[in-house]
Amino acid sequence: MVSEYMYKIGTAPSPIREFFELGRAKAAELGPENIFNLSLGAPAVPMPEEYRQEIIRLMMEEDQVKLHTYTTTAGDEAARTAIAEDLNKRYGTNYTRANLYMTAGAAPAICAVLNAIRNSEDEEIALLAPYFAAYNAMIKGARMKKLEIKLPEPDFRLDLDAIEKALTPKTVGLIINSPNNPSGIIYPAEDLQKLGEILTRKSEEFGHIIYLISDEPYREILLDDVEVPFTANFYKNTIICYSYSKSLSIAGERVGYALIPSENEDFAKLYPAVAGAAGALGVSNAPSLFQKALVKCAHLHSDNELYKRNRDLLYKELTGMGYVCTRPQGTFYMMVKALEADDKEFCRRAAEMGLIFVPCSGFGWPGYVRVALCVPEDVAVRSIPVFKKLWDSYQ
Amino acid sequence: MVSEYMYKIGTAPSPIREFFELGRAKAAELGPENIFNLSLGAPAVPMPEEYRQEIIRLMMEEDQVKLHTYTTTAGDEAARTAIAEDLNKRYGTNYTRANLYMTAGAAPAICAVLNAIRNSEDEEIALLAPYFAAYNAMIKGARMKKLEIKLPEPDFRLDLDAIEKALTPKTVGLIINSPNNPSGIIYPAEDLQKLGEILTRKSEEFGHIIYLISDEPYREILLDDVEVPFTANFYKNTIICYSYSKSLSIAGERVGYALIPSENEDFAKLYPAVAGAAGALGVSNAPSLFQKALVKCAHLHSDNELYKRNRDLLYKELTGMGYVCTRPQGTFYMMVKALEADDKEFCRRAAEMGLIFVPCSGFGWPGYVRVALCVPEDVAVRSIPVFKKLWDSYQ
Repeated sequence: MVSEYMYKIGTAPSPIREFFELGRAKAAELGPENIFNLSLGAPAVPMPEEYRQEIIRLMMEEDQVKLHTYTTTAGDEAARTAIAEDLNKRYGTNYTRANLYMTAGAAPAICAVLNAIRNSEDEEIALLAPYFAAYNAMIKGARMKKLEIKLPEPDFRLDLDAIEKALTPKTVGLIINSPNNPSGIIYPAEDLQKLGEILTRKSEEFGHIIYLISDEPYREILLDDVEVPFTANFYKNTIICYSYSKSLSIAGERVGYALIPSENEDFAKLYPAVAGAAGALGVSNAPSLFQKALVKCAHLHSDNELYKRNRDLLYKELTGMGYVCTRPQGTFYMMVKALEADDKEFCRRAAEMGLIFVPCSGFGWPGYVRVALCVPEDVAVRSIPVFKKLWDSYQ
Repeated sequence: MVSEYMYKIGTAPSPIREFFELGRAKAAELGPENIFNLSLGAPAVPMPEEYRQEIIRLMMEEDQVKLHTYTTTAGDEAARTAIAEDLNKRYGTNYTRANLYMTAGAAPAICAVLNAIRNSEDEEIALLAPYFAAYNAMIKGARMKKLEIKLPEPDFRLDLDAIEKALTPKTVGLIINSPNNPSGIIYPAEDLQKLGEILTRKSEEFGHIIYLISDEPYREILLDDVEVPFTANFYKNTIICYSYSKSLSIAGERVGYALIPSENEDFAKLYPAVAGAAGALGVSNAPSLFQKALVKCAHLHSDNELYKRNRDLLYKELTGMGYVCTRPQGTFYMMVKALEADDKEFCRRAAEMGLIFVPCSGFGWPGYVRVALCVPEDVAVRSIPVFKKLWDSYQ
């Protein structure tokens, strides 16, 4: 019979989808020009022109049989080499293609990694709230437990004491996501350094490795002149899950990877276990065309100017009105404190006015909402008076 | 710590890979022109020109932000509608996009389906040997058991009595694959009819549905003027897993779907459970570009002429020498009886002569080998004297 477990996952209310659909309904009622849909985390700028030209060139000039055939199971060899070299240049690392396993986006990489480090259904994966809502289904898919650790408002930095206290002997992995969806916060190097020390200490205390699973789809979406510290440089048992969805504006094309540094204590077993889990889950390779176009383009990323301008505008205007907001340095999201305790009610009232964003209760931090900055600039500009109207309605 | 379970899957010997690698090594020794690599099941003809032109057009003319963004979770709506309409025209069915869930090839569809019908780790999935070797890892990935049912040589048709006797109260699904990899056999309509009756009877007897999971990546790879009976028309609780890998020669691009007919008794729960499992496994959508190009091209498929010519040649020449072979009507594979009991030893002796094919012991039918027909015609032609030399070496 049908699995109740998977049925529940498939029918679990998605806060993002609920408010996205509400936005659609409101558009029919109020007219699409009166809807300010800040609910979806999809790129709003095109892929880099050089990447587009390379895809077209491959489609026009290359042998079409070879271009579209199976890559090796771990992904196209030349693409993996290009990615490793680009990382080495930027982060002083020493990776080769043997550290990379290509996947169809970051989600399959995370799922393969969870299964690769899982030994029983009692084991826990620690999440730092606020966190990306989809981790819930991934942890359930691996038939593991979630351990939620709340980071303190209003800036949602790493609370190292809270993390150290929360970890239990059943914790086998901790997912971090910096720049963070939904807060936009980048965890600073000194905090990552201390986090690495905590994980080392706790791994020793518990007698097993606690893996740091670093989900980095926003690593290149930077809104200030800042560096994102490279997580794997702070803790040896780190696995990086990456996606080009945002950095190359190809969210629908599904290209990403698991990066398993050789520094991992268990590297010789870990990499084949990730490969085995990927095969066993049916997590297939990334599409060949988009992989092969990376050979020349692994260093590129889309232009973040639009996201930056929207961040500048919305942060200034909303804080000016009195809203409590994070000031995102990366991603294209901002967290805003709801004007009532129930963030879903707050989202519903905003939606009545045409302003669509999503409650953070799905991201482990009720009482806040996530406002997406990846919209055309005029949408951001024209949303300002509606944010004011929403504010006034609560006074 | 690293999961031994996934590590074992990731390091399990792959018969295909082993002999493919041996072929590479031999190429270095004997010269690539003296290697006849009939080990890999990858398309040897290009995608249809109309599909290529449509992909280029989308890349040159369409809004690049919309083209490459997330599709809906179930896949691009227009593409699903086009696929449903094409199926309806060909098979007299009545599908809509609501019956389709796009996946990155057939493997993720199968994995999502297995998880969607799984309720405990005692449950079995029945496989009809010879079967596609990768099902083993997929069943392990769903943490289920395999029930192997051997079909009789030399033509590997459905042995209905054997199937009826083999099913147990723990059997919750049966995978069929017609045209079959590795035999090339197409199961006839009357056998599918009887199989449907058996599954209906046994489902009633056991008090739970036995799903028919029909893996159909070779549905369009036909080598004679034959029809492939449409499995879902013979048994209501059928789920079809499809891939465009072979039919459009895009094995590396990862486009396929799960088709869940509304006739399924549990449709209202089954579809969301498949969707839930897909999300929980990280089985992402098919790439947007290749989906959107299907809107105009869902009816196309690559030219099978090369495979047909290679089948004609190799079947005639090999049977003429005395080999026992299946006569494939579909796929681009042929099963050949090994000339000694140990099919792996037979493959090794052939490889010494430059002739590379894979043992069927990995496909559940030891004593045979799988010869791939998806090679340039001159490779097939020039392999004939080597097959003769191999034959003679056993006399």
